[in-house]
Amino acid sequence: MSAKIVTLTTDFGLKDPYVAEMKAAILSVCPTAKIVDVTHEIEKFSIPTGAFMLASAAPYFPKGTVHVAVVDPGVGSSRRPIVMQTESGFFVGPDNGLMVLAAEAAGVKQVREIRSRRFMLPHVSGTFHGRDIFAPVAAHLTNGAPIEEFGPPTSDFVKPSFAQVSKNVDTILGEVLHVDDFGNIITNMHAKDVEAFSGDIIQIELTKSPLSQVTKFSRAYADAKSQEPLALIGSHGYLEIAVNQGSAAATYSAKAGDQVKLSKA
Amino acid sequence: MSAKIVTLTTDFGLKDPYVAEMKAAILSVCPTAKIVDVTHEIEKFSIPTGAFMLASAAPYFPKGTVHVAVVDPGVGSSRRPIVMQTESGFFVGPDNGLMVLAAEAAGVKQVREIRSRRFMLPHVSGTFHGRDIFAPVAAHLTNGAPIEEFGPPTSDFVKPSFAQVSKNVDTILGEVLHVDDFGNIITNMHAKDVEAFSGDIIQIELTKSPLSQVTKFSRAYADAKSQEPLALIGSHGYLEIAVNQGSAAATYSAKAGDQVKLSKA
Amino acid sequence: MSAKIVTLTTDFGLKDPYVAEMKAAILSVCPTAKIVDVTHEIEKFSIPTGAFMLASAAPYFPKGTVHVAVVDPGVGSSRRPIVMQTESGFFVGPDNGLMVLAAEAAGVKQVREIRSRRFMLPHVSGTFHGRDIFAPVAAHLTNGAPIEEFGPPTSDFVKPSFAQVSKNVDTILGEVLHVDDFGNIITNMHAKDVEAFSGDIIQIELTKSPLSQVTKFSRAYADAKSQEPLALIGSHGYLEIAVNQGSAAATYSAKAGDQVKLSKA
Repeated sequence: MSAKIVTLTTDFGLKDPYVAEMKAAILSVCPTAKIVDVTHEIEKFSIPTGAFMLASAAPYFPKGTVHVAVVDPGVGSSRRPIVMQTESGFFVGPDNGLMVLAAEAAGVKQVREIRSRRFMLPHVSGTFHGRDIFAPVAAHLTNGAPIEEFGPPTSDFVKPSFAQVSKNVDTILGEVLHVDDFGNIITNMHAKDVEAFSGDIIQIELTKSPLSQVTKFSRAYADAKSQEPLALIGSHGYLEIAVNQGSAAATYSAKAGDQVKLSKA
Repeated sequence: MSAKIVTLTTDFGLKDPYVAEMKAAILSVCPTAKIVDVTHEIEKFSIPTGAFMLASAAPYFPKGTVHVAVVDPGVGSSRRPIVMQTESGFFVGPDNGLMVLAAEAAGVKQVREIRSRRFMLPHVSGTFHGRDIFAPVAAHLTNGAPIEEFGPPTSDFVKPSFAQVSKNVDTILGEVLHVDDFGNIITNMHAKDVEAFSGDIIQIELTKSPLSQVTKFSRAYADAKSQEPLALIGSHGYLEIAVNQGSAAATYSAKAGDQVKLSKA
Repeated sequence: MSAKIVTLTTDFGLKDPYVAEMKAAILSVCPTAKIVDVTHEIEKFSIPTGAFMLASAAPYFPKGTVHVAVVDPGVGSSRRPIVMQTESGFFVGPDNGLMVLAAEAAGVKQVREIRSRRFMLPHVSGTFHGRDIFAPVAAHLTNGAPIEEFGPPTSDFVKPSFAQVSKNVDTILGEVLHVDDFGNIITNMHAKDVEAFSGDIIQIELTKSPLSQVTKFSRAYADAKSQEPLALIGSHGYLEIAVNQGSAAATYSAKAGDQVKLSKA
């Protein structure tokens, strides 16, 4: 039996009724859906942070889950609504790169542009596609509507820089995806991107920090001395640069979007 | 099949366990209820804001939904608990005007005072009717209990000033319902109140602003130049006064409760 | 029919995807579980506050509810994961005292250390037992797995000082459990602890306040004059010291953990 789960990841906050309106639209189409909030507290319009939150949470949900993500500075413009089918479920939202990290980690099977009006609310506003398009589309997918009926396949969906790492034998180039509340610097290098480096002494270079750190991957923050840097694979699956009992972001003046270079020492 | 949805709109916040206690009371009576939070972050005791949030969200829910609303400065006093049946569902809460905007937009069929103790928790506190009365009443309605059994009909329920606009051929008098995070001034004039004006050049007067704006209704914020005012019907269905890329509330020193006058120029 | 309710009480906040990951883990094991958030806004690592929130909310849930609580400064250390079965349901979380207040109020039947790996996620991290152990264990309990299969019985679980009051004929010694947003001082003395005093004139002594108050128990805040102190049983079931229209915590310099002495005058 399918759990009929729909998750929501947005930058809408919890003060306004927007999230409830999305849930209303979902339950109107699929009354038995189980809706789970991933977070609604993403910094307004911060696509990389939203992408990171979604990619962190999605792997824990059962097969068949439909994830709706709305961090959508381009709503009302010509940016397309898309649905991405993966090995583990579906991702529904704007074609702005928000869902690519999570979808590629799960294994993309096909991507469709959402065009069919019969899966949307009767009136589609220019300002709130989360309620008018993405929520009802997710509910119809949960009900079992075939993805082919939503619109034509597309292969030129937006692939943001943060969803790309460039690898060769001795170095990996990526970027800072997110700085968390503790000042930990989370990069866009996934565990599987860096596994070839895991037994070696490595160097990490950050945009603002010419000083290289030479280190092995650690297993826990406490593997470094107090105020010393370390690199580890976080529980989210990405390479993270931390300072034990300190803020790596402050120490290295790092912020989302900064370049990161990893090399064998 | 009914979706058995119960929505919650309160000023309780999410730090304390109060919302959870309401959900516990609902699920104790109706274990299959689907509970959706509209918002719990209404400014404490702000009935007009709560009324606006509820009226914004309610139209998107399926027929039969039971909405519980608790912004209740008069709890423990003689203010009555009521249930309002509309064309689209039910509203349960204090008789202080909180639900009137949403209920009237949906079309009021009947209003009952809640008196029957068998639909309440065994012990009704003097401080928390949300949990002790409104939540279990909503759950019994969701279970299909006939509204007639909850108490006697009433027609003199509180109708707050913000739920009334006064119209004649050339002018409409109303008030400011809510100022949102962007400084947009949301009035209590519903789209259907102002539709007779929609093709005309209009004047808008605000309490603190003798300066009249002369304008047509806009379709989007970007219809006005930067820092210029505009009037439009927001996605919530009410007339809204905005300043493109600015704060209308700051520009016109407007706040909830201020009078608004709309006239044909 | 069981309602299959799982509640969550944590200090994780709503910004990060941690709560969603716990819900994903629960729904992966028990797709029909109804998950209710008690709160996720407990001050980080504040076990007494978490214990109070859980003890406040738990009594309102139907029999059979499984409560998961995670305020867990010792995660990854040797502190044990436990499940407590009570007359009304189950409590799952770390053995650090967090659940004792709620569980003892409900009547403890048995306590088990959680050892069986087959009820956990395949990979148990050192940092997030909420997702990797407590959530799936709760889901298996909800599915009806016998508590005996989770691990061996234990009787030496942590009993924190705030879960103990010392009584004799004329005095009760306890402590401050929580100071709420209004400055009300909530003690760890439950209604049943103090019922022998309820008809008498009483004295209350606080650590920082040698001045005794002599008073009877009140029924409502308004029983005292403005800015005057009172003692009452709050809607949470615990003895609370308040100042009508003022802050008792500020007046008496009280904070969580302070000693409280109640005596007959």
